[in-house]
Amino acid sequence: MNFNKRLDKLRGFMENEKLTAVLLTDPLNQCYMTGFEIITYSRPIFTLVTKDECILIVPGLEEEHAKLHAEYDRIFVYYEHPEKADQINPVELIIKCLQAQKGERRLGIESRYLPFELASILQRENWELADITSEMIKMRAIKSEKELEKMRQVCSLAVGSVQAAFRALKVGITELGIEDAAARAIYQEASYLYPDSSFISRGMNPSGIERTILPHVFSNLRKIELGDGLIITRITSLDGYKGECERTCFVGEPNAKQRELFEVMVNAQKAALDTIKAGVRANNVDVAARSIIQEAGYGENAVHRTGHSIGLAVHEAPFFRFDDNSILKEGMTFTVEPGIYVPGIGGFRHSDTILVTKNGYEMLTECPRSIEELIFNPIAHK
Amino acid sequence: MNFNKRLDKLRGFMENEKLTAVLLTDPLNQCYMTGFEIITYSRPIFTLVTKDECILIVPGLEEEHAKLHAEYDRIFVYYEHPEKADQINPVELIIKCLQAQKGERRLGIESRYLPFELASILQRENWELADITSEMIKMRAIKSEKELEKMRQVCSLAVGSVQAAFRALKVGITELGIEDAAARAIYQEASYLYPDSSFISRGMNPSGIERTILPHVFSNLRKIELGDGLIITRITSLDGYKGECERTCFVGEPNAKQRELFEVMVNAQKAALDTIKAGVRANNVDVAARSIIQEAGYGENAVHRTGHSIGLAVHEAPFFRFDDNSILKEGMTFTVEPGIYVPGIGGFRHSDTILVTKNGYEMLTECPRSIEELIFNPIAHK
Repeated sequence: MNFNKRLDKLRGFMENEKLTAVLLTDPLNQCYMTGFEIITYSRPIFTLVTKDECILIVPGLEEEHAKLHAEYDRIFVYYEHPEKADQINPVELIIKCLQAQKGERRLGIESRYLPFELASILQRENWELADITSEMIKMRAIKSEKELEKMRQVCSLAVGSVQAAFRALKVGITELGIEDAAARAIYQEASYLYPDSSFISRGMNPSGIERTILPHVFSNLRKIELGDGLIITRITSLDGYKGECERTCFVGEPNAKQRELFEVMVNAQKAALDTIKAGVRANNVDVAARSIIQEAGYGENAVHRTGHSIGLAVHEAPFFRFDDNSILKEGMTFTVEPGIYVPGIGGFRHSDTILVTKNGYEMLTECPRSIEELIFNPIAHK
Repeated sequence: MNFNKRLDKLRGFMENEKLTAVLLTDPLNQCYMTGFEIITYSRPIFTLVTKDECILIVPGLEEEHAKLHAEYDRIFVYYEHPEKADQINPVELIIKCLQAQKGERRLGIESRYLPFELASILQRENWELADITSEMIKMRAIKSEKELEKMRQVCSLAVGSVQAAFRALKVGITELGIEDAAARAIYQEASYLYPDSSFISRGMNPSGIERTILPHVFSNLRKIELGDGLIITRITSLDGYKGECERTCFVGEPNAKQRELFEVMVNAQKAALDTIKAGVRANNVDVAARSIIQEAGYGENAVHRTGHSIGLAVHEAPFFRFDDNSILKEGMTFTVEPGIYVPGIGGFRHSDTILVTKNGYEMLTECPRSIEELIFNPIAHK
């Protein structure tokens, strides 16, 4: 990835906005600027971008990791052992770096991420805080060629993982059993294809009438029963880039009501996809899907937006949402996933990841989506 | 879990501190107060505790989920579809609830979690913000009998997962291959033992000289070589409660230097464990482990604290850290995990989860920890 180009762009924005520095606290924005993909629990990491430097502030246990995998000009490390008792407070390191800057005390921050405590300290140091969230969203929304290469790869792995889940479907398997099968197959494929990459796979497999109407639930130990609908949901991550593929499917024959709702959902997704191309507004894609669902009488059951951007974050802006009028641009990547959730019948959602092109879209998650292809034999099959 | 007891305790604190309400933004504090275990991506969830009510504010796609799995008095839902366009902003819902409260405009918040943007809005509404972080830490630190039951169960699953990883060890398997084996076995065991629970398993398996010195890395596709040291790290989650078990082990015979460092680490962990009992200060546990490591000449390589509390969060306060002088109390649960990371030789860390008792500790992750038990045959074995 070309981190210098990203820094140049941010510095151009800083100059326009008269920002002396930008303090990044969102781990994904930091990854975008430095390539440092981190597991954070209780120890914060900060990236400070000034006119001349990209400065990383990390805990001692990430020092070697940062030196191996991050791009930066200078690094400051805070510790938690007595040999370095004079250097244990990351906030002091931030303040020290900021005090060394010349120019107006105007600092770019992410207002939905910066914690109140740190914001208060910065304000007491007389820094004026300016929100740069929308600039970071804008930068990350349009993927470079190198990012698109990763997106294509990770989306293909998401599809592979959904297909592995399909192969595991049978009466009696648990939601977590499906998760296991889907993860296992895709770890093997990822190991083979991308031996030098970091890879993560996760998912949800809500099953049955009561659980498929819950869009976000951890897989549990419920056993699949004959006639169950499921929403197989797989999210994969390759070197930090995310791919998403989700399919509604059935173990054994669906009933007439399940078929009806499945068709409404598939038609809504098709309408959304047909609307997508560079120049269109994001809300139009939501409108296209919703009008099909509303016409069928299920508007109130379509409780979420039609899709979200995807990249380093699973969910990032802009959104296919009725009140988001961002203009789609070539190089943006989105999920397209209208969902309908009807108590007593179940939930219905496919999700595909697509790339916006000049005249339409490129499908990144090619995978069966018709009902004929998504009814599985209730007896084990391989 | 007894949520009313927790609410009563928080309300007692609110009365002392003259807080009219508490706004929780940390998902784990919210789970602690309501039992609602959520997957959050881009849609925030809030819990507002007032003198009389526990109010949940959730996005539309969590409405049914909350009704099924959360404990609360009143729920407000924000939506993202045009049928409910008058109710799309969760912050407006918070403000509305707050405006209905009588009393001083003093609001308890978590200052390391509340985003700057929301804090600014609340301040503009003339709410004085008071940090309640330490009160929440205090409440969550001491586990109830019901919580301890979960902790014992989830820790036993973490051990099972480490042992499944051991069975997969051989030359040529990848770090992710080990992850897969460890996850698969434990999903099966969890499915069998706790059919009505939510369960998650994750881990890291850094291997070899260069990767074991990185305490937190995603497993990758590196293949295990003869003589490799590994740090098998498993974190399990049962109905939200976390267990942690980690073991340094070898595929084939370790060399003299690896043996030396392994022994220093094991002795440091033993010294830490021997120090633990109710009434002792947390930093003394760190001192006990560190003095062994320092004596052996590796003080500078012990880059992290000796352990952390664990419960709903993998890492929560208090910590076994040189500058944390919290007093250990019966019912607290901690990891004990001194680590030594020497470039050119490798990283060495066991982690056990323990319960502080009156006279010592209860080991929750009983699993081999001597070098004889942790050298594995380089050829596949079952």
